Amino acid sequence: MCQLLGMNSLLPASLALSLSGFSLRGAAASGHADGWGAAFFDTQSDAPGKRVRCFIEDAASAGSPMAARLQSHPIKTHNAVAHVRRATVGPASLANSHPFARELWGRHWVFAHNGHLEGFDPPLLGAFRPVGATDSERAFCLIMEGLSRALGPSPPIGELTAAIHAMAASIGRHGAFNFLLSNGQALWARASTKLCYVQRSHPFQQIHMTDTGRHADLAALNGPRDRLCIVATEPLTSNEPWVHMEAGQLAVFADGALVQLLCA
Amino acid sequence: MCQLLGMNSLLPASLALSLSGFSLRGAAASGHADGWGAAFFDTQSDAPGKRVRCFIEDAASAGSPMAARLQSHPIKTHNAVAHVRRATVGPASLANSHPFARELWGRHWVFAHNGHLEGFDPPLLGAFRPVGATDSERAFCLIMEGLSRALGPSPPIGELTAAIHAMAASIGRHGAFNFLLSNGQALWARASTKLCYVQRSHPFQQIHMTDTGRHADLAALNGPRDRLCIVATEPLTSNEPWVHMEAGQLAVFADGALVQLLCA
Repeated sequence: MCQLLGMNSLLPASLALSLSGFSLRGAAASGHADGWGAAFFDTQSDAPGKRVRCFIEDAASAGSPMAARLQSHPIKTHNAVAHVRRATVGPASLANSHPFARELWGRHWVFAHNGHLEGFDPPLLGAFRPVGATDSERAFCLIMEGLSRALGPSPPIGELTAAIHAMAASIGRHGAFNFLLSNGQALWARASTKLCYVQRSHPFQQIHMTDTGRHADLAALNGPRDRLCIVATEPLTSNEPWVHMEAGQLAVFADGALVQLLCA
Repeated sequence: MCQLLGMNSLLPASLALSLSGFSLRGAAASGHADGWGAAFFDTQSDAPGKRVRCFIEDAASAGSPMAARLQSHPIKTHNAVAHVRRATVGPASLANSHPFARELWGRHWVFAHNGHLEGFDPPLLGAFRPVGATDSERAFCLIMEGLSRALGPSPPIGELTAAIHAMAASIGRHGAFNFLLSNGQALWARASTKLCYVQRSHPFQQIHMTDTGRHADLAALNGPRDRLCIVATEPLTSNEPWVHMEAGQLAVFADGALVQLLCA
């Protein structure tokens, strides 16, 4: 299975600490050596931006100079989505590496998927077509097409959430459909088999990173106004209250907090 | 003015040597310190790919660690487009940094512009909307919309060229409209005020790089089967037969050669 990592933050924040552990999950030893990627929305005077920067590689994230650079020169953002891949559908290639990005209503959207959809080959009649060969990008195109048809330009987050939830339930009938989706305003996290999240805010504590075995003092890395949520396939730390999502749930994170949770 | 750099190559080739000189043009001293970007199409078993990787920064390319990394860890590709920016419309920001990318007919398209369009505010009625505030991205969206309306899926390069040429002439009435456009199959270079190109093939010679003052032996960097074209706002070398394009010309490069040239 692939692994997902997402962040939504009130203030521009770095994903570097989370990536330090997460990127180790993209190693030959773990079976996730078929590519990785990370997407960071830009910020506009501390407000969430509309353009995304996407870094992808068709090799393991562990040992990748690019992944190392994103940790040594972190990009601060309100919304980030990352993915390490073990190929199930489509060969290991850049074209098949998550996250995928598209533009809708004058802002970028990014999507990363963990799972496998069986017998999933819907006709795509709109403006979004897959560039690669994955079921994941096809599902993303179907969601983008559905949003563009169902809603007017720049709908409020609540309307987006309802539409995304309905489409996710429909697509999710084809198999495991855990995904992260962001448009720079919010982060949508949909659980099917495995996804969890944690909120971090003042007072920040010392955390123990599961993958690296290291400790980190969040109080030294964050100010009193910082507030962020981290979403991951498996907890990144062993001493925080990670919430394991139920099958079919859709969680919406904005301004560094869980703002909506829809059930199956 | 901004500066453009493009490459089309028969075999996957590195843009690193060209970037070593070109990136110096994105320096505070030259007035091009408002951002830079470079886009590289992926390759599929030595064939041109459909997915692009875009690297952008809202700071000068000279001195940028990311620009340095693209030279020390070069990405080999059939098609690349790069840009250094001096802001004329829209502030210096990631959202306004070229190249811009969109998906059409299941492959990515990238676009970079040098020039300024006056009174250019066409209605956009299709599926492509600007994320940033530049006249350049608006022109790109208009071209994408025009292609998607005028042509069926995956048209041959000749049909694309005719449609691009007509739209470029129409948009070009608003001002300077030098641009590079690629879909991974071909590189279109449109001249308005300033654009030139050179073809390199066996036997390769020693070149003198204008910006760095250095010499480079292309015979040591290329094999006998290599063949590529470089397009730039100003020649990158002082001892090669750069062809200066005429106003209104559209040049099409595929498989490392000029394959079509349309006049105003």
